[in-house]
Amino acid sequence: MKVAIVGVGLIGGSIAITLREKKVATRLVGVDKSEHNLKKAIQLGLVDEGMTIDEAVDHCDVIFLTIPVDAILTILPPLLDRVTNQVIVDMGSTKERILARVTNHPQRGRLVAAHPMAGTEYSGPEAAVANLFKGKMMVYVDAMDSDEDAFETMEAVTEHLEMRTTFMNAQEHDVHTAYVSHISHITSFALALTVLEKEKSQGRIFELAGSGFESTVRLAKSSPDMWTPIFRQNRENVLEVLQEHIKQLQHIQEVLDNENYDAFYKLIKKSNKIRKILK
Amino acid sequence: MKVAIVGVGLIGGSIAITLREKKVATRLVGVDKSEHNLKKAIQLGLVDEGMTIDEAVDHCDVIFLTIPVDAILTILPPLLDRVTNQVIVDMGSTKERILARVTNHPQRGRLVAAHPMAGTEYSGPEAAVANLFKGKMMVYVDAMDSDEDAFETMEAVTEHLEMRTTFMNAQEHDVHTAYVSHISHITSFALALTVLEKEKSQGRIFELAGSGFESTVRLAKSSPDMWTPIFRQNRENVLEVLQEHIKQLQHIQEVLDNENYDAFYKLIKKSNKIRKILK
Repeated sequence: MKVAIVGVGLIGGSIAITLREKKVATRLVGVDKSEHNLKKAIQLGLVDEGMTIDEAVDHCDVIFLTIPVDAILTILPPLLDRVTNQVIVDMGSTKERILARVTNHPQRGRLVAAHPMAGTEYSGPEAAVANLFKGKMMVYVDAMDSDEDAFETMEAVTEHLEMRTTFMNAQEHDVHTAYVSHISHITSFALALTVLEKEKSQGRIFELAGSGFESTVRLAKSSPDMWTPIFRQNRENVLEVLQEHIKQLQHIQEVLDNENYDAFYKLIKKSNKIRKILK
Repeated sequence: MKVAIVGVGLIGGSIAITLREKKVATRLVGVDKSEHNLKKAIQLGLVDEGMTIDEAVDHCDVIFLTIPVDAILTILPPLLDRVTNQVIVDMGSTKERILARVTNHPQRGRLVAAHPMAGTEYSGPEAAVANLFKGKMMVYVDAMDSDEDAFETMEAVTEHLEMRTTFMNAQEHDVHTAYVSHISHITSFALALTVLEKEKSQGRIFELAGSGFESTVRLAKSSPDMWTPIFRQNRENVLEVLQEHIKQLQHIQEVLDNENYDAFYKLIKKSNKIRKILK
């Protein structure tokens, strides 16, 4: 199977590593608007050669789109115009707008929308790692809109990545990711900004940063090129969660302001229920 | 050296492991208001035997206080009354109130105030682990108020724990920990509450939780017994940070609400500066 990776960064590069390792890909083609990243990806052995996106579509059987979601939105319609029997896999972090744009496309069946719930705060080809996806969740979105053979091709890939799978529609997907992924990034950005601001006047503050701080703030290293378009496309859902999150923080603030430590204790105890969910 | 661990949980138990391993402690005595924890600590081999706190002070050379900060506040004055040449080490996460309470005590010199910037979200003797402190920061607070020999005894322990060290006064300590530790816990509590609330109406939401979510929310597993007193004692500083943090979130909300994606991009880019600090 000839595979094209459009966007040879963290996600695309990590897929490439596994598909080569498992001998699923007989040929790996990289497409990237950054010459530098493409060269690097070839150097690192992630892909065998670089092509333009049109060449890649014509030469390959499966084309993975692992680029920012605004770029997916733009290139997907012309890509489907060009496709015959190939499979296009949209791996973006938002789905409603992207899928709405191609919902009536005659080649819609060649598209599989999937979102791997895996990643790190790093980006670019150097960030690609083996086993990034192992044990993680692959979310198939509006899977019934894909041709059966296209879906099966992707399912085989997901098995090689050793991922678990779940299915949902685009609207559900975008709400759920707002709650368990997008808001986490916003809290990290805000926390980083809060502390960076304080450091300016106070200095030395980071000397004391331990693993707890690092854990809550590490997502603030995330790429603005990748994340700005996600927030743009999932704006309404994110605003809803953000509003609720601010309300929770204001409640904690009020409880602390009133020195109501019984209520404070109960809030922590209630938040401890997250233990059932996180192992 | 005979060592007493008052509070045989995550921190106390982890110190015990290293002091035994490095043959610093010839005898390890556990003190705990929970019979169950004490038994468990003996079973796990963290300590050799249990004693009351008064017995422990009379029998030991160094007494580590690794209990919630409200308990430290209560037991510290009578403990110093009883002490002759022993060293008491206060390992609490807040310092201003605790040190203010004993500032004029005739035995103040026997007390070393130190705060190891290390921990996990787990608690109790089963949570104790070897190497918890390795490479982490030990903060000495108001070190000039300790007798030289008492300080040197503790410094030797810190070296055995393979920690780095820094020095500050109590007021600085409490401001800095509010920024790089206490606020991280509040954002985690609030995030857990936000998502747990949503799950009630929506269900299935946690299926999609990946490592990013886990990372920002794991501190919400923290013990309310330990953390409520910390927020009580560091209330003013925490309220200040919390207010600034809410302001940052409201600014992000406003920018997103106005669809000002250039500003959004710049905010992420600015928060990326945290990369300089976190490795």
